[in-house]
Amino acid sequence: MKEIGSAMSLIRRGAEELLIEAELIEKLKSGRPLRVKAGFDPTAPDLHFGHTVLLNKLRHFQELGHHVMFLIGDFTGMIGDPSGKNATRPPLSREQVLANAETYREQVFKILDPDKTEICFNSAWMNEMDAAGMIRLAAQQTVARMLERDDFAKRYANEQPISIHEFLYPLCQGYDSVVMKADIELGGTDQRFNLLMGRELQKHYGQAPQCVLMMPLLEGLDGVNKMSKSLGNYIGIAEPPKEIFGKTMSVSDSLMWRYYDLLSFREAGEIAALKAEVEAGRNPRDIKVMLAQEFVARFHGQEAAADALADFEARFRKNEIPDDIPEVRVAVGEGMPVFKVIQEAGLTGTTSEASRMIEQGAVKLDGERVEDRARLLLAGSRVVLQVGKRKFAAVVLE
Amino acid sequence: MKEIGSAMSLIRRGAEELLIEAELIEKLKSGRPLRVKAGFDPTAPDLHFGHTVLLNKLRHFQELGHHVMFLIGDFTGMIGDPSGKNATRPPLSREQVLANAETYREQVFKILDPDKTEICFNSAWMNEMDAAGMIRLAAQQTVARMLERDDFAKRYANEQPISIHEFLYPLCQGYDSVVMKADIELGGTDQRFNLLMGRELQKHYGQAPQCVLMMPLLEGLDGVNKMSKSLGNYIGIAEPPKEIFGKTMSVSDSLMWRYYDLLSFREAGEIAALKAEVEAGRNPRDIKVMLAQEFVARFHGQEAAADALADFEARFRKNEIPDDIPEVRVAVGEGMPVFKVIQEAGLTGTTSEASRMIEQGAVKLDGERVEDRARLLLAGSRVVLQVGKRKFAAVVLE
Repeated sequence: MKEIGSAMSLIRRGAEELLIEAELIEKLKSGRPLRVKAGFDPTAPDLHFGHTVLLNKLRHFQELGHHVMFLIGDFTGMIGDPSGKNATRPPLSREQVLANAETYREQVFKILDPDKTEICFNSAWMNEMDAAGMIRLAAQQTVARMLERDDFAKRYANEQPISIHEFLYPLCQGYDSVVMKADIELGGTDQRFNLLMGRELQKHYGQAPQCVLMMPLLEGLDGVNKMSKSLGNYIGIAEPPKEIFGKTMSVSDSLMWRYYDLLSFREAGEIAALKAEVEAGRNPRDIKVMLAQEFVARFHGQEAAADALADFEARFRKNEIPDDIPEVRVAVGEGMPVFKVIQEAGLTGTTSEASRMIEQGAVKLDGERVEDRARLLLAGSRVVLQVGKRKFAAVVLE
Repeated sequence: MKEIGSAMSLIRRGAEELLIEAELIEKLKSGRPLRVKAGFDPTAPDLHFGHTVLLNKLRHFQELGHHVMFLIGDFTGMIGDPSGKNATRPPLSREQVLANAETYREQVFKILDPDKTEICFNSAWMNEMDAAGMIRLAAQQTVARMLERDDFAKRYANEQPISIHEFLYPLCQGYDSVVMKADIELGGTDQRFNLLMGRELQKHYGQAPQCVLMMPLLEGLDGVNKMSKSLGNYIGIAEPPKEIFGKTMSVSDSLMWRYYDLLSFREAGEIAALKAEVEAGRNPRDIKVMLAQEFVARFHGQEAAADALADFEARFRKNEIPDDIPEVRVAVGEGMPVFKVIQEAGLTGTTSEASRMIEQGAVKLDGERVEDRARLLLAGSRVVLQVGKRKFAAVVLE
C-alpha cells in the first residue's frame, strides 16, 4: 500500500484533476502494467514545452512500469475539415502523416523511454470502419449530451453553426479508447469532455471505464497566457541550447516554480528544498540557472548544458556586472517602455537622457544591447539594466 | 407547352405539395425522361392501399414516359436500431432483404410497368462508404438545421433523447438522391424534411436539386385516421377479391370520392362526370361498385372482378332486401353500439328488444349476421340494417 501511495503522489504531481481516484487505485493494486493513452494532433509536430507537460506525465507512468500508448490522431487529420470552412486544415496525405510521426518520434523520445512506448495511429482501425460502423457508434450518444460540451453549448446558444460531423469526432476519440483498451487517458483540461467520452463508450462496449488524468495548460514565458506558438511566448524543444537557456532565464521567479513543478524531472522533495533555500535568502537566479541547465541537458545533452551555462556566465562577466549592484523596484503597471524604466530606476535623471543613451547604444538589459527605446517591460521579472560603463541596477518589475 | 400543361395536371392530381413547380416545368421542357425516385421501407413489404397512393403517382410518371427508381432502403434496415432502444427493429439479414424485395416486386408490378421501373437498393453504395465518407457527409449539414425537423424539435424541447445516428439517417436518404441523380423525389407529407435534404445535398455535390412531390397520407376505411395495418382500417393489396370488394363497399360516400382521386386510374374528367351523375340523383352505391370492381380487377384481374360483383349482388338478392327501404339518419356521436342504433332507427321499440333480437341471430348489417350487440357503429357511412324477416332500414350514420 505504501508503494501505491507514492505512485499516486507522483501521478498527482502537477495534475489538475483525476477521475476516478478510487478506480485508479484499484487498477494500480492489480499490479499489472496499465495501458496509458494520450492523443496527439498529427498536424503540429513542432513541440514546445507546453506539450511536454503531458509527455512528462507519461514519463512518470513509464517510471512506474506502465505501458504508454502515444496515439497520433491521423484519421481525422487525413479528413481535414470536410465542411470547407477552415481552409487552414487541408487533408493530410499518408506520407505527410508518416513524416510528421517521424518528427514526433525524434522529439518525444527525448522525454519518453522508447522501449516502453507504443506509437499508435487511429487510422489503423478507423480506416477499417465502414459507414454502418460509424452509424452504430453514433447511436451510443445523444444530441443533448453532446450539446453539453462547453464550446458546442456556447455556439448553439449563439446560433453559430455546428456541423454534424463535429459530433462524430469526440465519438471517434472515445472509440480509440475502446480499441486501445485504455486503463487511463491523459489530456489537457480543455479535453475534459472528450476524455469522458472514452469512459462512456468503454462502458457501452463492456469494458471497465478508463480513468482520466487532466493536466493544466502551461503558461507561456509571459506568465499569463497559455504557451502557444502563435503568441510567441514559447520554448520549442528543438530550439538551440542558447535559446532554451536564455528564454528560461527570462521567466519571472514565480513562473520558475511553476515550471519546476510541471517541467522539471527533479523530485518533489528536492524542489521543496530549493524553495526553502530561496526563502532563506539564496538568489533565485541560481535556481533558475539549474532549471535552464536541466532543460538544455534534456534536449541537447550534458555537454551542451555546460556550454550554455559557460556562455551565459561569460556574457555576464564580459559585461562586468558588479556583484553588489543595487536592487530597485519599479511599478510598471500594464507594461512600461524601457526608457521610462531607466529613469524610474534612477539610472538617468530624465526620460530624454535615457532615450539618448539608448540611441547611442549605451544601454544593456541582462547584458544585451537595447535597440528600441519603446521596448515594453512587463511586470513579474527581475532584469539587470546597465547605462554607460558604470551605472547598474537590478530592477524588479512589478 | 400544351403537352407540359397536361403532364403537370396529371402530376398535380391528388398531390399535396410540389417543390419547386417552376423547376419541374423546366425539367419537363428538356424532353428527356426524368429520373423519378421514391424510397420504401425494407421491413414492411405487405402493402395496403395507403402505399399505393405513391405507387399510382409513380405510374403517372411512367405514363408520361419517365424513369422510375423504386428504392428499397435496405442499408439502414440491415443496421436495425443500433441504440438498442427499439427492440421491434432487429437488423435484417441480406437474405431477408432480398426476400422482402421479391414480395415488393410481386405487389408493385400490379401497378407499375416493370419495363420502366428500376429497383434499387441503397446498400449498393452505402455499403461501399467508409467511416470517413460518413464524416464528410455529416459535415454537409448543421445541428441547428437538423433540429428544425418537427419530431426532433419536439423531442429536444421535451428532453427526450435523440441518438446522434438519427441525424445521419436523413443525410443517408439525401445522399441516395445524389447517387441516383434524382430529378424528382416522391414521398408522403410526413417525409418533407428528408425529401428536402436530398435537394440540399445535391446542391453541395454540384447537381441540380431534385424537385419534391408530396402525396397526402390516405385515410383508412373509417375516413378519419391514416390507413394503417395496426389500426385495422386498411385494404391490403394481397387480400382476396371478396375482401377488397366488400371493404370498398363499406366506405362512406365522401371517402369514396377521395379514393377515386387518389386510388382510381380513371381520368379526372371521367370522375367529374360520375360526380355529376350522383348529384343528378344516381345511387352512389353504383359508383362505389365501379370503384370496388376497378380495385379487384387491378390486383386479381377482370374475371375476379366480375365474380366479386356477382357474389356481392347474389348476397343482396339472397337477403331479399327490398328496393324501396326507408332511409333514416342516426346521430351516433363518437360511435354507438348497434343495439342502440337499431332502436334509434325505429326497428325495435326498446334497446332490450334490439339486444334480444341480436341474441336470437335475427339482426343483419349489410347482409351479415350481427353477433355482438356492443359492436360500435361510427359516423360517416350508410348501412342496411335488417331485423327479423321484414323490417329494413337504410341507416345514414352521422
